[in-house]
Amino acid sequence: MSHKWVYFFGKGKSEGNAQMVNLLGGKGANLAEMTNLGVPVPPGFTITTEVCTEFYKNNRQYPADLAPQVEENLKKLEDAMGKTFGDPSNPLLVSVRSGARKSMPGMMDTVLNLGLNDETTDGMAKLTGNPRFAYDSYRRFVQMYGDVVLGLQPENKDEIDPFEAIIEKKKEARGIQLDTELTTDDLKELVAEFKAAIKERTGHDFPTDPMEQLWGAIGAVFGSWNNERAIQYRKMNGFSDDWGTAVNVQAMVFGNMGDDCATGVAFTRDPATGEKHFYGEFLVNAQGEDVVAGIRTPQPIAQMAEMMPEIYQQLDDIRDRLEKHYRDMQDVEFTVEKGKLWMLQTRVGKRTGFAAFRIAVDLVEEGMITKEEALMRVEPDQLNQLLQPVFDFDSKRLAETEGHLIAKGLPAGPGAASGKIYFNAEDAEEAALKRNEAVILVRLETSPEDIRGMAAAKGILTARGGMTSHAALVGRQMGKVCVVGCGALNIDYTKRQFSVGDVVCKEGDYVSIDGFTGEVFAGQIQTKDSEVIEVLIQKSLKPEDAPVYHTYEKMMQWADEVRKLGVRTNADQPDQCENAIAFGAEGIGLTRTEHMFFEGDRITAVREMIVAEDEAGRRKALNKLLPMQKGDFKGIFKVMTGKPCTIRLLDPPLHEFLPHNEAEIKELAATLGVDFEHLNAIITSLEESNPMLGHRGCRLGNTYPEITEMQVRAIMEAACEVKKEGFDPHPEIMVPLISSKEELAMQRQIAQKVIDEVLAENDMEVPYLIGTMIEIPRAALTADEVAEVADFFSFGTNDLTQTGFGISRDDSNKFMPHYLEKGLFEHDPFQKLDQKGIGKLVAWATENGRKTRPDLKVGICGEHGGEPSSVEFCHRIGLNYVSCSPFRVPIARLAAAQAALRDN
Amino acid sequence: MSHKWVYFFGKGKSEGNAQMVNLLGGKGANLAEMTNLGVPVPPGFTITTEVCTEFYKNNRQYPADLAPQVEENLKKLEDAMGKTFGDPSNPLLVSVRSGARKSMPGMMDTVLNLGLNDETTDGMAKLTGNPRFAYDSYRRFVQMYGDVVLGLQPENKDEIDPFEAIIEKKKEARGIQLDTELTTDDLKELVAEFKAAIKERTGHDFPTDPMEQLWGAIGAVFGSWNNERAIQYRKMNGFSDDWGTAVNVQAMVFGNMGDDCATGVAFTRDPATGEKHFYGEFLVNAQGEDVVAGIRTPQPIAQMAEMMPEIYQQLDDIRDRLEKHYRDMQDVEFTVEKGKLWMLQTRVGKRTGFAAFRIAVDLVEEGMITKEEALMRVEPDQLNQLLQPVFDFDSKRLAETEGHLIAKGLPAGPGAASGKIYFNAEDAEEAALKRNEAVILVRLETSPEDIRGMAAAKGILTARGGMTSHAALVGRQMGKVCVVGCGALNIDYTKRQFSVGDVVCKEGDYVSIDGFTGEVFAGQIQTKDSEVIEVLIQKSLKPEDAPVYHTYEKMMQWADEVRKLGVRTNADQPDQCENAIAFGAEGIGLTRTEHMFFEGDRITAVREMIVAEDEAGRRKALNKLLPMQKGDFKGIFKVMTGKPCTIRLLDPPLHEFLPHNEAEIKELAATLGVDFEHLNAIITSLEESNPMLGHRGCRLGNTYPEITEMQVRAIMEAACEVKKEGFDPHPEIMVPLISSKEELAMQRQIAQKVIDEVLAENDMEVPYLIGTMIEIPRAALTADEVAEVADFFSFGTNDLTQTGFGISRDDSNKFMPHYLEKGLFEHDPFQKLDQKGIGKLVAWATENGRKTRPDLKVGICGEHGGEPSSVEFCHRIGLNYVSCSPFRVPIARLAAAQAALRDN
Repeated sequence: MSHKWVYFFGKGKSEGNAQMVNLLGGKGANLAEMTNLGVPVPPGFTITTEVCTEFYKNNRQYPADLAPQVEENLKKLEDAMGKTFGDPSNPLLVSVRSGARKSMPGMMDTVLNLGLNDETTDGMAKLTGNPRFAYDSYRRFVQMYGDVVLGLQPENKDEIDPFEAIIEKKKEARGIQLDTELTTDDLKELVAEFKAAIKERTGHDFPTDPMEQLWGAIGAVFGSWNNERAIQYRKMNGFSDDWGTAVNVQAMVFGNMGDDCATGVAFTRDPATGEKHFYGEFLVNAQGEDVVAGIRTPQPIAQMAEMMPEIYQQLDDIRDRLEKHYRDMQDVEFTVEKGKLWMLQTRVGKRTGFAAFRIAVDLVEEGMITKEEALMRVEPDQLNQLLQPVFDFDSKRLAETEGHLIAKGLPAGPGAASGKIYFNAEDAEEAALKRNEAVILVRLETSPEDIRGMAAAKGILTARGGMTSHAALVGRQMGKVCVVGCGALNIDYTKRQFSVGDVVCKEGDYVSIDGFTGEVFAGQIQTKDSEVIEVLIQKSLKPEDAPVYHTYEKMMQWADEVRKLGVRTNADQPDQCENAIAFGAEGIGLTRTEHMFFEGDRITAVREMIVAEDEAGRRKALNKLLPMQKGDFKGIFKVMTGKPCTIRLLDPPLHEFLPHNEAEIKELAATLGVDFEHLNAIITSLEESNPMLGHRGCRLGNTYPEITEMQVRAIMEAACEVKKEGFDPHPEIMVPLISSKEELAMQRQIAQKVIDEVLAENDMEVPYLIGTMIEIPRAALTADEVAEVADFFSFGTNDLTQTGFGISRDDSNKFMPHYLEKGLFEHDPFQKLDQKGIGKLVAWATENGRKTRPDLKVGICGEHGGEPSSVEFCHRIGLNYVSCSPFRVPIARLAAAQAALRDN
Repeated sequence: MSHKWVYFFGKGKSEGNAQMVNLLGGKGANLAEMTNLGVPVPPGFTITTEVCTEFYKNNRQYPADLAPQVEENLKKLEDAMGKTFGDPSNPLLVSVRSGARKSMPGMMDTVLNLGLNDETTDGMAKLTGNPRFAYDSYRRFVQMYGDVVLGLQPENKDEIDPFEAIIEKKKEARGIQLDTELTTDDLKELVAEFKAAIKERTGHDFPTDPMEQLWGAIGAVFGSWNNERAIQYRKMNGFSDDWGTAVNVQAMVFGNMGDDCATGVAFTRDPATGEKHFYGEFLVNAQGEDVVAGIRTPQPIAQMAEMMPEIYQQLDDIRDRLEKHYRDMQDVEFTVEKGKLWMLQTRVGKRTGFAAFRIAVDLVEEGMITKEEALMRVEPDQLNQLLQPVFDFDSKRLAETEGHLIAKGLPAGPGAASGKIYFNAEDAEEAALKRNEAVILVRLETSPEDIRGMAAAKGILTARGGMTSHAALVGRQMGKVCVVGCGALNIDYTKRQFSVGDVVCKEGDYVSIDGFTGEVFAGQIQTKDSEVIEVLIQKSLKPEDAPVYHTYEKMMQWADEVRKLGVRTNADQPDQCENAIAFGAEGIGLTRTEHMFFEGDRITAVREMIVAEDEAGRRKALNKLLPMQKGDFKGIFKVMTGKPCTIRLLDPPLHEFLPHNEAEIKELAATLGVDFEHLNAIITSLEESNPMLGHRGCRLGNTYPEITEMQVRAIMEAACEVKKEGFDPHPEIMVPLISSKEELAMQRQIAQKVIDEVLAENDMEVPYLIGTMIEIPRAALTADEVAEVADFFSFGTNDLTQTGFGISRDDSNKFMPHYLEKGLFEHDPFQKLDQKGIGKLVAWATENGRKTRPDLKVGICGEHGGEPSSVEFCHRIGLNYVSCSPFRVPIARLAAAQAALRDN
């Protein structure tokens, strides 16, 4: 028996099915499956992907036994349709389409209406009583075939399509504007002119024999597997060149043969909200492309129930059957030809994040899928849509239509925000707190001094900086809507305005920013709060009144049942901790103590400490800071009672805390009672060429042990005091930026002495750990040694990425966009952990640290801790936990659950 | 038979020998060996290190059979000396000294003159007819024993030594100034007062029984093995605590009993020059400590030939015997007691670099050692003394005596230089070139713009920067004497002067700097040129007139015979290449093309390129640079004909080439005919937060491919043109700062296209390679992939250390000194390659790169390439070559030879 190259589908029975995707392609397998389900599908047959593979293997020759199999299946198709290929009295027309294992939309070729020639077109005209329809179809076929199969295409990119040129000329000659004004005779003439042009430009006669047409189209589709854009698309998506495409030959059906005809697209549930109702549009007497093109406004699918009740009922049944069969929401295309319903396609429907979660949870509750399946049906990042305010859909569409979209930056903090523009932190704070305005803080870039303004604002918009710039990091941590690196903004602080081209936005004007997309709109757009936030954080909504919250809650519950990775949060303030706990954080993975240094008056004491000329001077200033830091820690320990709190000792270079312009320095000199020149000289001497690689992290605590002593004392005294109040503190002291075991050992020694003192002074025990950030390659490379003096490791993958790649994230915008575009980096390593390089360090250090100390607790506290692919990596290499900003905690929980499920 | 715990030596026969160092300690083994050689050594015995080990193992108890063995040996000693321990008529006195496996000078205890008490002292006085000598010896003994054995020591660090206090009081009472003015009666009183103080403060009676004294001293010496400073010393030097010390009990001999007595120290060859003549000093009627203390001026050893001809002849014979026996230059101590010569010690003598090389080569030529031994007898770094000018010894000592040593910086470029101070490159150049002055360029720190001034100067002195700062790197490469990071200098450019405390040095004043030690002297010090340089570089001396050159040449020849590692040079200019070849470089490992950008007028074209706003503008400027760069490369290829030349594409961030003050920017704006404000804005936009991690290296060539294209064209056109002139160019194009394979692949593609073009245009073949620097951790971590597109790797260990440690070398001076002092880093990783961390990356990348491409050429071109321990590491992990600055090439050759020998 010869090899089977062709699979038939039709009349309720197929030779293929949905499992045979690799052989039949996605489209072919689904058409076969639908047919098997008894859904009315125009019959046809699929030439397998194996033919494509053979075709290329054998120098573009088909297998010898392909032709008889095609002919045999064509015969079956004629039988099924009761029409005959090439028969003028009742012609069978077919479509010829590609269909690879995975969808490659628009990359390969398609031919419709195949089988038409002068005779069959004439027959069609008679048969339908609609000559214009017949000749328009013929015109389209010749045009499509001439382009795709015979290759009559523009010779260069400046030339317009040769067929369109002929049409334009014809319309000019007729003095008409629209294609629809062309008469049947015009169309006939066009067909002739098209054929002549093809002959002249390509040397080919247009084939009149339908069989010849068919083989031409099959060859063109197979050929298009290796056209340039298809190759490029496969490379981009990681699809193998060896897959090949199948070719689907299917009977044509027409929705534009009269008022008993229609065409439409529909979703089995609402793709925006996920609600369980039939959602879609249709057009009477129209072709599929008319729905897509938007020339005529389609009608909601519900109206079909009145206009074509039987068809509607049939469609609704099929909707139900398909969903039950595929166990997911489906996106279907259908055509009604002369009162008969034909389903042309079904596939898993695209949906918003809202809908994805709603549908997944509903399907579990309807008993259609398991919890585990539900967890795998969503993208963790889609959770953002449930947590953040979003723009009202209609308001946003209106703003776009009216041209208010003025720029696009990087989507650094998800959500939508609309508010009045302020250009500095003070003004922003005043407007928000005193006048209760919604504020968008607009800055070239933000710095630690802007923190209070950022906290007061609804959203933050900057002209510079990347996804891990200060604005992005701090904004995300605060849960602010944030768009950064919006280079198109021309900000003029003096004039208190920014401009984009002609558009000028002044202080107090409204601006709206979309932190999901990076879009910036002039003016106000209505936003909608997140139900989840209203229930969990604002407590302004009851759970039972919040279906979106229900969805969230269910999914989180299921996630926690399966995940193995712990999830902590990066938080510096008690309110951030409260949010994080509401979102399910199991502890703090990173508290940045330096953020506390900017609050209130303490910055003055900090500065006094920095510019002190000896240890005594530093100690004096540190003594002022001690009670303030202690207060901070007490607040945190109370909220986090019973949960571990990793507190990082001072990290940034000291000059970050100093004033840099003359006026500020003079003010500080006056406050401290020192000479301006002298102070200025000290500040200058602290400047660094590469602050990222300078005098910071444990290098501070090792050169100025009194800083470490003060911070450790503040931590431990706070722990003792809250414990006396009945709380259960679990401090974990974390030493930043070590590159050698000895650096950690010295910090440990300094800390241990203070801890012993404080516990003795208070005559009590508090459980504590001393560990380190691993954020310098050498620390990872010597992790076996470092673990000798560490109770835990926490990977600071932000800095590890900076040092491991030799890239300063603050400077990377000069080349990173180009690098991503050209594929020099697969992805931005500051967004997704680079598993191939940096990940090697993380895995190596984890493995070797545990060889030294099997019970070593290992986590990650870089921004990557809330990024799903990075979370999966952390699960795979066996970390104990990930830590991320409060609003990303649910995302990390979900990603951890998916990782655990994938690992099974 | 009981275990042997004690080994006797004396009367020409020992129970031990030099091989028994572990058992007898260094001192004991050598005394035994000398005795065996027939050298007159005061007899004695050694209590083994095993006793020490047992002592500590058994809770400070001696083995039971030790006492009888000590008594037996003491008896033998009495017999040998014809004196009796404790016999007033002819008392035997002994010294009791420690002696570990390796010398631990001053760390453990010693007791001299043991055996004295009231009776024996009286006997000594009669026997010698010198009561003052006897009682002074007694006074010394009681003092030493009281301190070491009985523990009468200052109670805190502010108290003066209690014995010295008593002496001071006595002198005060007597109204005298000097110890020598104390009478015999005074000394007797002191002894009594010492004993009383001991009794009062420690409760101990001073033991009068010599046997009790002996056991007390033995116990004290064993006890001193575990005193705090000894433990610390062992830790610092990596000596094991388990070794233990031996105790040597040896008969005392005295050089101060009359004019037939003497004491001295001598070297068997000149320790300064290595010349083969007897070198040393002696004092008649004196004790060893008088020679060391410098109270009396000793006489040259040659005078002994006249004063004590027989003794001198005996000593000269022993000198010859010891050298032949030990096969190395010896440092001996001797005492003549009443006309009899006693040798007290012999050990390998310390020597200068000059002497080390001279002696090693002479010993080979005298047939005493092998070439391989000679190679292992020297420190590679000592070669510097043969290559660099040095201060005339007497002139330098005079300058020190007169207080001209004003500061100390880091010794960044070896040699000595004296010259007139200039504070900027232009003035320095003018003074040197037009007025032919010797110039020392003094700067806060240097930048690429100072290069011509640096080239014109004899020496460079900076106030800031570390061992790998710009001044240090470039200075070393140019072979300049260089002292950097001399923080004590207060430089005032405006006043054209610097000050250190009260000393003010103005422009034109002389300053002298020592690049071996970092010392800075006000005023002029005579220098002496290197013979090697005169022969090899200046060609002002014939080899046959240059014994130092002969030494150098022999050693290099032997080194080349055994080394396996290739040695290349880092050089940017033809003259540097010529020097490097003279020093034996086998190719160029690194040419930094950007150094060429500062020459002559080309900086203007470079700046034009940088500020151009589009590719066309950049190409226009690059076209101006092309012929200049080509000229540079031609010069290099001609000198390096037949040898590989690795040329690195542009590396530094572009803003390094731009002017930064307003005047310069205005000038550039005028030159380029652009608006000042606009130009200023462009320059500002190029600034970076962390330039080290910014837009540089291949990130430039990948975002502006036209720069790579120009440089590759210049390289390949230069190669073609010199080949036409009969030279044999071997360009190796090196792409800097890659962190992913894709980055290199893109640079390779850009370069390959230009190479193909140029070779086609010239219709010729030139051998070439395209490879990459590995200087970013991620490049090392993904080396297996990177090797797919690299013909060679060259480790840029400077940057790899910066990124691997997360340390900017320009900023490291804020904590590095502290870190080195506290042992947080074992050594400065910018000076010695950190084998434990960074070395792991180097080894890993080498191994995995070669897995992908077995013939991958791998070298190192960081500054470490000329540092001996790093060279050894490179040998061990199988690199093909190291590359270093021209003046370090001989050092690398020697270090490579030693590595190969150690590896055997």
